[in-house]
Amino acid sequence: MIWFGGDYNPEQWEPATWGDDVRLMKEGGINLATVGVFAWSRIEPRDGEFDFEWLDEVIAALTDAGIAIDLATATASPPPWLTHAHPEMLPVTEDGVRLHPGSRQHYCPSSPIYRRYAARLVTAIARRYGDHPGLRLWHVNNEYGCHVGRCYCDVSAQAFREWLTKKYGTIERLNEAWGTTFWSQIYGSFEEIYPPRSAPTFRNPAQLLDFDRFSSNELLECFRVEVAILREICPGVPVTTNFLGFTKLVSYWDWASEVDIVSYDSYPEPDSPDSPARAAMSHDLMRSLGGGQPWLLMEQAASAVSWGHPNRPKSPGQMRAWSYQALAHGADGILYFQWRQSVFGAERFLTGMLPHSGDTSRVWAEVSQLGGELAALERVQGTRVHADVAIVVDWDSWWAIEQEALPAQLSYSDGIFSWYRELFELNVSVDFVRSDQDLSAYRLVVVPSLFVLTETAAATFDSYVQGGGHLFVTYQTGIVDESTRIAPGGYLGALQNTLGVSIEEFAPLVPSGTRGEGDGPRLGLTGPITGPADAELWSEYVHTHGAEVQASFSGGSLAGWPALTRNETGRGVAWYAATLPERSARAALLEHLLEEAGIPANRAVPGLEVVTRGDVVISINHGGGDVHTSSSGTDLLSGEPVAGVALPPFGVSIVVPDDSPAAQADELEPALTGRN
Amino acid sequence: MIWFGGDYNPEQWEPATWGDDVRLMKEGGINLATVGVFAWSRIEPRDGEFDFEWLDEVIAALTDAGIAIDLATATASPPPWLTHAHPEMLPVTEDGVRLHPGSRQHYCPSSPIYRRYAARLVTAIARRYGDHPGLRLWHVNNEYGCHVGRCYCDVSAQAFREWLTKKYGTIERLNEAWGTTFWSQIYGSFEEIYPPRSAPTFRNPAQLLDFDRFSSNELLECFRVEVAILREICPGVPVTTNFLGFTKLVSYWDWASEVDIVSYDSYPEPDSPDSPARAAMSHDLMRSLGGGQPWLLMEQAASAVSWGHPNRPKSPGQMRAWSYQALAHGADGILYFQWRQSVFGAERFLTGMLPHSGDTSRVWAEVSQLGGELAALERVQGTRVHADVAIVVDWDSWWAIEQEALPAQLSYSDGIFSWYRELFELNVSVDFVRSDQDLSAYRLVVVPSLFVLTETAAATFDSYVQGGGHLFVTYQTGIVDESTRIAPGGYLGALQNTLGVSIEEFAPLVPSGTRGEGDGPRLGLTGPITGPADAELWSEYVHTHGAEVQASFSGGSLAGWPALTRNETGRGVAWYAATLPERSARAALLEHLLEEAGIPANRAVPGLEVVTRGDVVISINHGGGDVHTSSSGTDLLSGEPVAGVALPPFGVSIVVPDDSPAAQADELEPALTGRN
Amino acid sequence: MIWFGGDYNPEQWEPATWGDDVRLMKEGGINLATVGVFAWSRIEPRDGEFDFEWLDEVIAALTDAGIAIDLATATASPPPWLTHAHPEMLPVTEDGVRLHPGSRQHYCPSSPIYRRYAARLVTAIARRYGDHPGLRLWHVNNEYGCHVGRCYCDVSAQAFREWLTKKYGTIERLNEAWGTTFWSQIYGSFEEIYPPRSAPTFRNPAQLLDFDRFSSNELLECFRVEVAILREICPGVPVTTNFLGFTKLVSYWDWASEVDIVSYDSYPEPDSPDSPARAAMSHDLMRSLGGGQPWLLMEQAASAVSWGHPNRPKSPGQMRAWSYQALAHGADGILYFQWRQSVFGAERFLTGMLPHSGDTSRVWAEVSQLGGELAALERVQGTRVHADVAIVVDWDSWWAIEQEALPAQLSYSDGIFSWYRELFELNVSVDFVRSDQDLSAYRLVVVPSLFVLTETAAATFDSYVQGGGHLFVTYQTGIVDESTRIAPGGYLGALQNTLGVSIEEFAPLVPSGTRGEGDGPRLGLTGPITGPADAELWSEYVHTHGAEVQASFSGGSLAGWPALTRNETGRGVAWYAATLPERSARAALLEHLLEEAGIPANRAVPGLEVVTRGDVVISINHGGGDVHTSSSGTDLLSGEPVAGVALPPFGVSIVVPDDSPAAQADELEPALTGRN
Repeated sequence: MIWFGGDYNPEQWEPATWGDDVRLMKEGGINLATVGVFAWSRIEPRDGEFDFEWLDEVIAALTDAGIAIDLATATASPPPWLTHAHPEMLPVTEDGVRLHPGSRQHYCPSSPIYRRYAARLVTAIARRYGDHPGLRLWHVNNEYGCHVGRCYCDVSAQAFREWLTKKYGTIERLNEAWGTTFWSQIYGSFEEIYPPRSAPTFRNPAQLLDFDRFSSNELLECFRVEVAILREICPGVPVTTNFLGFTKLVSYWDWASEVDIVSYDSYPEPDSPDSPARAAMSHDLMRSLGGGQPWLLMEQAASAVSWGHPNRPKSPGQMRAWSYQALAHGADGILYFQWRQSVFGAERFLTGMLPHSGDTSRVWAEVSQLGGELAALERVQGTRVHADVAIVVDWDSWWAIEQEALPAQLSYSDGIFSWYRELFELNVSVDFVRSDQDLSAYRLVVVPSLFVLTETAAATFDSYVQGGGHLFVTYQTGIVDESTRIAPGGYLGALQNTLGVSIEEFAPLVPSGTRGEGDGPRLGLTGPITGPADAELWSEYVHTHGAEVQASFSGGSLAGWPALTRNETGRGVAWYAATLPERSARAALLEHLLEEAGIPANRAVPGLEVVTRGDVVISINHGGGDVHTSSSGTDLLSGEPVAGVALPPFGVSIVVPDDSPAAQADELEPALTGRN
Repeated sequence: MIWFGGDYNPEQWEPATWGDDVRLMKEGGINLATVGVFAWSRIEPRDGEFDFEWLDEVIAALTDAGIAIDLATATASPPPWLTHAHPEMLPVTEDGVRLHPGSRQHYCPSSPIYRRYAARLVTAIARRYGDHPGLRLWHVNNEYGCHVGRCYCDVSAQAFREWLTKKYGTIERLNEAWGTTFWSQIYGSFEEIYPPRSAPTFRNPAQLLDFDRFSSNELLECFRVEVAILREICPGVPVTTNFLGFTKLVSYWDWASEVDIVSYDSYPEPDSPDSPARAAMSHDLMRSLGGGQPWLLMEQAASAVSWGHPNRPKSPGQMRAWSYQALAHGADGILYFQWRQSVFGAERFLTGMLPHSGDTSRVWAEVSQLGGELAALERVQGTRVHADVAIVVDWDSWWAIEQEALPAQLSYSDGIFSWYRELFELNVSVDFVRSDQDLSAYRLVVVPSLFVLTETAAATFDSYVQGGGHLFVTYQTGIVDESTRIAPGGYLGALQNTLGVSIEEFAPLVPSGTRGEGDGPRLGLTGPITGPADAELWSEYVHTHGAEVQASFSGGSLAGWPALTRNETGRGVAWYAATLPERSARAALLEHLLEEAGIPANRAVPGLEVVTRGDVVISINHGGGDVHTSSSGTDLLSGEPVAGVALPPFGVSIVVPDDSPAAQADELEPALTGRN
Repeated sequence: MIWFGGDYNPEQWEPATWGDDVRLMKEGGINLATVGVFAWSRIEPRDGEFDFEWLDEVIAALTDAGIAIDLATATASPPPWLTHAHPEMLPVTEDGVRLHPGSRQHYCPSSPIYRRYAARLVTAIARRYGDHPGLRLWHVNNEYGCHVGRCYCDVSAQAFREWLTKKYGTIERLNEAWGTTFWSQIYGSFEEIYPPRSAPTFRNPAQLLDFDRFSSNELLECFRVEVAILREICPGVPVTTNFLGFTKLVSYWDWASEVDIVSYDSYPEPDSPDSPARAAMSHDLMRSLGGGQPWLLMEQAASAVSWGHPNRPKSPGQMRAWSYQALAHGADGILYFQWRQSVFGAERFLTGMLPHSGDTSRVWAEVSQLGGELAALERVQGTRVHADVAIVVDWDSWWAIEQEALPAQLSYSDGIFSWYRELFELNVSVDFVRSDQDLSAYRLVVVPSLFVLTETAAATFDSYVQGGGHLFVTYQTGIVDESTRIAPGGYLGALQNTLGVSIEEFAPLVPSGTRGEGDGPRLGLTGPITGPADAELWSEYVHTHGAEVQASFSGGSLAGWPALTRNETGRGVAWYAATLPERSARAALLEHLLEEAGIPANRAVPGLEVVTRGDVVISINHGGGDVHTSSSGTDLLSGEPVAGVALPPFGVSIVVPDDSPAAQADELEPALTGRN
């Protein structure tokens, strides 16, 4: 069964409405409702006084109707009585501004007060509903780090000191790691350390990176506090928290092993031509976080959101197409924020499944149509997506490469997207991987700007190549170690051997173009593979030590220097790109790499996405005109045999090839079983 | 008599200068001087010690010269000794930054300390001068809300709580109104509420709107404190305070009934081609605030101001032309900030009537010429401007439509100006009206984006149409109620019946163009009235329920959906625009509406403004070339008969038609009599 | 001997590295090392405990190798134990944000705690090393005012009050000077005064200017505290502090007499075509601060810096060319930040003399080549640059003309550069001068926008002209006096007589173009000298009183008004420019002025800079192609006779003409002798 539903916030409505809600949910095919995400002040209206009767009623009604419950722990937005009694739990910016109640997420993640009150609430909820037959999933908090990923208050300062004490043991080891002899920052004790609050100029990069790690971990500690309670009181119920996709502030690799099922919220911009590829990239990250297990699209918008400039609606068919895209990339559930669109509050213009215009609207028609269709897709549920290509993603690198006072101002996620998008256009499935995990399952591993290179990662990459892997590494990889020190042995660190190159000096290019003023003509790439092409964002002076030059810079001071190199070593091949070639050259280069690695690519009609999940082929037309797919077999949506399908804009086909076995039972595990 | 003069700040000058001042004022035709606006620290140099002797002397000299006094209460800029003794009266930003002395208006409007000290000062001034024969008008404070329209300090927080307690009575009613079940904001008591200080993300919209209302009212309370004293001590003297024109932070409808005469400060940008229409719009609002009574242009600049980037001078003739424009729109007084240009302080580069270059300057020549001319315009004084068209303006809507997290980022005043400007170009006089006042005097009422629709307003509009009125309503009207909740019954609320339409979903357009990426071709309008035209800013999905479609969208997902509708109901007609047509289409549409409503329009030569006030026709050439008017009769400036007038750039003619009665005595009441 | 070296921070490296450092320094020709700039927390790891042993070792090693020591006082970055114990010494922004440790320069310049601890440190260092034979120079603190030029904390507030008390004596005199009758700011006592913290709107301009003066002086007081100690303990050693070039926050004229030798840090943008002229302008200012004495280029980057967006490397040869440019403009030392590029800390991407890629790199090759070449340039050391042209630079004007609420937003340094650049292109040497110094040594004095005009300055300029000088004054000169009051007698003050003009009114132009909307056609200049040309930034209404009009405005309201005037008076000539002519017209005008003043100009090939220092002619090719110089004589770098030299891009020639005496011994004083 594919899960279908959304956030249901009955506290926003008169009880008289609840009956209609359940009736319409059934009509729309809803089988899972997330309840209580922002209900703290309703559940606990006064310190220690809990009111569960209304929630009992709602949960009973849903359960009676056969709608499963994803029950929230309700800790994401503390009630007014709590912050009024304890203003010291409010978060503080790096400028010292204390953020006030009036929106949500107004708590310092390190606050012991917040954690204590949250724990008491979670305990009460878990005891009340832990053995309820309708309970299917715990939904812990909400979008950790969305608004307050970093807190600089005195409480956080003390927690940071304790975290550092635990990490380094002695202040001497911290001084060594942070390089505090620079700018006279040698600490005498941990007590002297502050969060990286606003300072006269550039702050210590190791302090910044450790504060990022600490802050991500403090949010994880909040999660752990809640999960420990839930697992103790009701050990059989899986736990999730809704992630945010490709988001900088929270290091999801650390969280992945602590949730039972990965879920996340996806809100692509309806009008951006990049949205299908951006969404797919996030989907693939989520699937990868769960080790390939199916995941839940916990939130999407039925049409417009309310934080854009302006907020464009989704076009007819677009929401359905994007829902199937999530399914194609491994989702076993399609949910929305939220069931009934609010009529008050800060998000009343975020479209609900049941929008302001109600059950006669186009939006509701598309939602309920989708709910009906998903019921026919049992075959897809629980199946996996196979990928031959992996891209390394690493939060340490993300944090470190976007600090101040670096050679250039690069966006880490844009860097990843630069390569992901071309693979997406080629309909090549991609997994995301850690820099220190076994890579032998992949034929090609792409490493975009892995700024922080650990010894383990360097060894992992090298043994991958020695064992026959194809490795593709880009500029600004291996520049620093875990302490943000320049990599031992020079830029690229131990990868210099693997790649057969070394870097003498950087020459980043001006972002808005590629011309370095005073540096002569436009830079370009020449070489057997890419042909003439512009270099974007980056260039540098590279020496080869065994690698073959595959393309060179053609203008300015860099004329004739290597831009792209290839090194055969062991049984594999290691490529290095000293620049970002323009898009067409990137695509050509990747096609070459895929071919060399023996990976089939499939450049379909522009706008047509084709993904294989399990044994079904899902085709989605993201473009503006009609396209034809080559899929043949049985269309799961119509139940009819097809041999090629014509897809209008936002059209979708889900086809089981004729030669596919009837079903692959061993893959059909329920998605919500999780790891417990 | 037309009042002519300006702010006179003798405390900035040696007493020896004062004699020259009075002599030159007489030469320049000055008959009204505003004295003491920023004199608090001069009048009360130490806590409770008053020094009036210098002011006695100045007032005596002016009075002896026959120059009337507009005496300020001097409360706009507290003296250093006061804020030093009571720093808690300084205002605080939403980020918690306490604003310091060194400029002006550095007080929290809710501060009881400020109010107490201000009251003592006003009492002393009123007792000293309340029966002075030269006193003609009280000038309370200065430009309320110009810099500090919102204060977020703890004193304001407490005052806000008290205001809310008074408004809602119980916390339950506030929770209901604010929709606090969203994001867990249910308050247990009023004590838990804060001003909408900086928060992690979007704040509660009802809290924001109530804080806007509260803040505007706190300023009004400051005004009331002073006025109560003045009216008690010297009940016969009219009271004003200088308004700021179309300004967002202060809701002038609430103030209009509490001043005896409306006055305001007008500083259009000399070089902007929009300035004549923008200024006229503010003039018309001021006249409308006073119920059509003449008003005073309390401040304008003789040439350049000092807050621009850069500050362009007025061209020769421009100041005179703009002064007559104010007269044409109902002003009975033309005044300046300030008499003698300062030689120190933060506004020393704001041109005075007597600029740095003194009485041999072009500026002084133009000022004194104007002073002489105005003496010949007795006939105009006290007369009214007749308008058949009204535009609704509403501060609740202004505040609510410019909040965060809305469908789009619209400017309320730009929205009004979009329609006002085309009426201005057609030389159609316009009144501004409240949304809940009797509209039967108007033939056409324009309602631009009245985001907040009250039940009263909806009923007012409906009965207006039923009674034969012509109503023109635009997109984003009636979206929410007074609590910022979605309008009961759906967008447009009860106006759905009046207009014969309903709205299913919004599709705002990207501001810099009209193309929705991914949404197909450019949107456009087609229909019998407007012809093909671009849609700007807004589009939406509209259903008709009785209304006729007058124009449709032509591209993208909206192709074929109604863009402009017309509904005959009762004895009137109600139009609805689901978009902002481009300028030429807007003009054509308005010409059609005017014709349908039987209102004469007069598209004169571009740049030529023609206004009828009382029985005189005032023509002003705002353009760059010579134009000819068709006015014939007697030119009041020359005293000569004319039959058509050639006007050079910035030329003005003021003509009484030959068939006009000699004088309309009943309209010639002195402007400063006010309501008392 | 030309000094060659850089900052050496051995505390960042293992002692084992130090031997290599000294060896490589010798190979590279280094003869001066700046040691200890950021070593406070290493020297004094705990309050009052000093550890000098490591520094003894380093200094001994350098001295043994014959490398002189520029010993820092190490006070620029207080150690963590100090700010932890005394957070009240941390600086505060105008918004009240307390800046925290984690970078550098985190101290309030007025803090008595900071000064006391700094003094104790300096005393300890001076006692330890004051008589060390290797000590050649004291390097006090570092880049005063670079990040924290203004502090608004309560300690600063009290210090500001004391400074004002000392300056004005009585509060009445302050009130008079500040014009506090404007906006009711009359102070009753000095206690009521605050720094110009964030306020509701424009702050008092005299308060702002005095705060700038106070703040610059507080930094100077910090410097004086240290210097007094050094001069007492070791009176024979010269003292410097590294200036920042053309920097706004610190008034270097006040500092110039207190250093024994001027030194400064120069970091031009490698890719900007303006960089050679910008750098030359700063070099000339530094030479001028020292009264023409040679100075030290204390810091430059060997290649890329790390605070740019992005950080472009220097091209091959560029660093060498720019080093010789400094030499040409009077430097007797070429130093870098820093010796060995850091591998940690906030500036690890700022290229060192020995970069990350080490002693096989291009950068090191160029550095060591230069070190070798400089050894051959004894002849240049100690010689002076002769200039016939002086440009007035004045920090009061800089501060005052960039305040808020002025006629336009002008950049003072850009204004100076507008004229300097054309003189640079003409290869005319320029000195910078104070507005009140004897000018008789110069044939032409340029006065760009000297906004603040003192009586002394006006008299200086007048007597200069009367005595035969050529004076060129531009718009926005003499607008206010030292108190920011409008100049007595009107704009230009007493210079009205000297120039034979007066100004009626300003008409600043919109920055991005020259068209004043509503003001008619483009402004232009017509006249015998400049021909038709666009006016930039500024225009105004000028009356002549004896001056001849040399060019007029040609469009808009200003058509026919004077744009450029010339007044013969006494034995000299005084020009006035009421606008900024476009570049080509500026160049033509300056050529005319130079010719009139009898100064030889030399417009060489574009990109070729030719400077005469002492008796050598230094030619530098800043352009992208080969150029030829006309220099003939002996090339000091090759030792060969030359007759014209072909210079490739970044090529340099240093030629002694054949007719030059063998050596000019009397000029060859050691640069570091200073004034002591």
